[in-house]
Amino acid sequence: MSPFPSSAPSTEEWRHLRLTRDDGVATVTFSRPEKLNALTFGAYADLRDLLAELSRERSVRALVLAGEGRGFCSGGDVDEIIGATLAMDTARLLDFNRMTGQVVRALRECPFPVVAAVHGVAAGAGAVLALAADFRVADPSARFAFLFTRVGLSGGDMGAAYLLPRVVGLGHATRLLMLGDAVRAPEAERIGLISELAEEGKADERAAELARRLADGPALALAQTKALLTAELDMPLAASVELDASTQALLMHGEDYAEFHAAFTEKRPPQWQGR
Amino acid sequence: MSPFPSSAPSTEEWRHLRLTRDDGVATVTFSRPEKLNALTFGAYADLRDLLAELSRERSVRALVLAGEGRGFCSGGDVDEIIGATLAMDTARLLDFNRMTGQVVRALRECPFPVVAAVHGVAAGAGAVLALAADFRVADPSARFAFLFTRVGLSGGDMGAAYLLPRVVGLGHATRLLMLGDAVRAPEAERIGLISELAEEGKADERAAELARRLADGPALALAQTKALLTAELDMPLAASVELDASTQALLMHGEDYAEFHAAFTEKRPPQWQGR
Amino acid sequence: MSPFPSSAPSTEEWRHLRLTRDDGVATVTFSRPEKLNALTFGAYADLRDLLAELSRERSVRALVLAGEGRGFCSGGDVDEIIGATLAMDTARLLDFNRMTGQVVRALRECPFPVVAAVHGVAAGAGAVLALAADFRVADPSARFAFLFTRVGLSGGDMGAAYLLPRVVGLGHATRLLMLGDAVRAPEAERIGLISELAEEGKADERAAELARRLADGPALALAQTKALLTAELDMPLAASVELDASTQALLMHGEDYAEFHAAFTEKRPPQWQGR
Repeated sequence: MSPFPSSAPSTEEWRHLRLTRDDGVATVTFSRPEKLNALTFGAYADLRDLLAELSRERSVRALVLAGEGRGFCSGGDVDEIIGATLAMDTARLLDFNRMTGQVVRALRECPFPVVAAVHGVAAGAGAVLALAADFRVADPSARFAFLFTRVGLSGGDMGAAYLLPRVVGLGHATRLLMLGDAVRAPEAERIGLISELAEEGKADERAAELARRLADGPALALAQTKALLTAELDMPLAASVELDASTQALLMHGEDYAEFHAAFTEKRPPQWQGR
Repeated sequence: MSPFPSSAPSTEEWRHLRLTRDDGVATVTFSRPEKLNALTFGAYADLRDLLAELSRERSVRALVLAGEGRGFCSGGDVDEIIGATLAMDTARLLDFNRMTGQVVRALRECPFPVVAAVHGVAAGAGAVLALAADFRVADPSARFAFLFTRVGLSGGDMGAAYLLPRVVGLGHATRLLMLGDAVRAPEAERIGLISELAEEGKADERAAELARRLADGPALALAQTKALLTAELDMPLAASVELDASTQALLMHGEDYAEFHAAFTEKRPPQWQGR
Repeated sequence: MSPFPSSAPSTEEWRHLRLTRDDGVATVTFSRPEKLNALTFGAYADLRDLLAELSRERSVRALVLAGEGRGFCSGGDVDEIIGATLAMDTARLLDFNRMTGQVVRALRECPFPVVAAVHGVAAGAGAVLALAADFRVADPSARFAFLFTRVGLSGGDMGAAYLLPRVVGLGHATRLLMLGDAVRAPEAERIGLISELAEEGKADERAAELARRLADGPALALAQTKALLTAELDMPLAASVELDASTQALLMHGEDYAEFHAAFTEKRPPQWQGR
């Protein structure tokens, strides 16, 4: 529950995604395996609203993004999205593209870490969703492809031209966004696109372990770490140092910081409260 | 021809560079091989004006920068530039340094991708010109050296202190700009300074192939990808996502996006129009 | 001496650090080896004031940061700092956290390059101090750990959430700041966190050699290179190019630039004056 509930009810069923919860870890699974988890308008809209709902709750402390079947997510569906957008007017095209961008902003701005578990293809919007996560745990089969120019669109889609240079540097980002070539797991590891290369078939398991570790950690400290990483990409040094100072002063009044000291003194592991 | 021609005539002959054109691919070759393609005032001025002219034309869809002879470009000529600047007054020094910076801005802001084909030395201003390109295809003989501090100047020359940290990270950039040490091809590949390591003697050929591929692609989509990569380095996340959304909405009205869908449906390769 | 001395006297003795000087190279050594050089309030305050004093002097041309004993610096002392902050009110907590941030700003903004010589542990604030240096020369035993979330605080401490993504990219930075896991020398080298991997036991010696090389170089050009690297992280491209142009015009009036040309012409090494 949100600490400040409004009149809006919670959604009972997400029809375009699978959502499971396990003691602070929420898992969102793209589950249209017969279409390599190609995204539909409904899937984007569900992601947008689901992330907003989860962000209001205090109970979610880590989120896993995963794909069912042979791959992670093959991006926007060629028929249901590309075909449909060809018939849209300008206002509707803007609505659609703003919605997809809103999903990326929600992933970067939600108050819990997001772990993408990537096996097989992460293409187009699927590659950007993985890119917007905090962690990318990849199977050796993972391949990322920012396919946008291959369909006649800009490689800057959903914030990719902002995020990718900040993850892998401008040189690699230019190459990946301009050409749309696939990046396989070894190269992805070499250029810093993935956080962890899992053993074959183990990406979901490792992502779940990482999400568990994060959810059992000092949730408020982790949420603030994420918020500062997101914010300080857009801030100058002096302001960043000031934001860090006020954030730490706040957290030094928190229960988890006192708990660390008590646990250290008593030579026992800390019991994090997320406060 | 520019879609909006003014009264200004096109330049018939560039005296300080060699320019060739081949169906959408322009190639600019530094051709003073006896001086390792050291740059003169005339070469900078030609580059500045040539890039402005090519940027107004719709016919150029990719640009190759290459060097004749033993290396790519050894930077500003010690006699013709360093010697001459020692006698200049402040206003003239500013004019000169602004001109070189303008060349870098033109490379980052022109509406087509730029591929640098680097073999042998890319030093001083030569290293920065390669850095400002979108792609760096390097021969195993390539070595980059940001020599500015070696001549008593700032490592931040022509935008190098802006660009290099965004390509290779602040740690490597500090080392390269402060010390001016040469970076050979294997290290350049490891730190993300080059886009592709070609086989020995093949950098020009591979750069030409890449430029051909880009020129045959969806030119407007590629131009917008480049524009967003350049602009979003200087923009916050939320504004970047909005810029992406409006750019995609625009391109979704374009012919190339419809052509992709038609070609996909008809199981044939798309015929890009660049519109 | 400062070229513009005020009435303030110089500090005669730094009680919480060891400061040595050798012909333009200042070396600051954390010397509480029995506590792995854990930082105290006094050490932070000494660093803050020492860096301000050294920055006013013209005689310091390079600074080495080193640690005595088994490691570089284990960060804030658990008893003297964490324990003490638990009893502080908000104003005092802000004062403390601003002071630590001020040290990082001073390291980034001082007019001489800073070389961290890291062996063994560089943890918490110790890792951020190394990160804020211009060069990190590391022993194979070096391990960096941004431990803040392990004590219930934000990984964004002293500018780490600003600096680390700009050094190693957002993906690695998120992992390191969120999890607080140790990064050993080989990984640190692979992701660009260190400038040079020294042979075993040689980090102090190599850092001293590098500082000597820098101190013997064109000091004003190096100071401006550092200033532009620091400033242009926070500036757009066009303004960066303009700042580079005016900086080079200034330095082209300087003695070191003329000296380079004279030495080159006379085929002798330049005698840098730092002017």
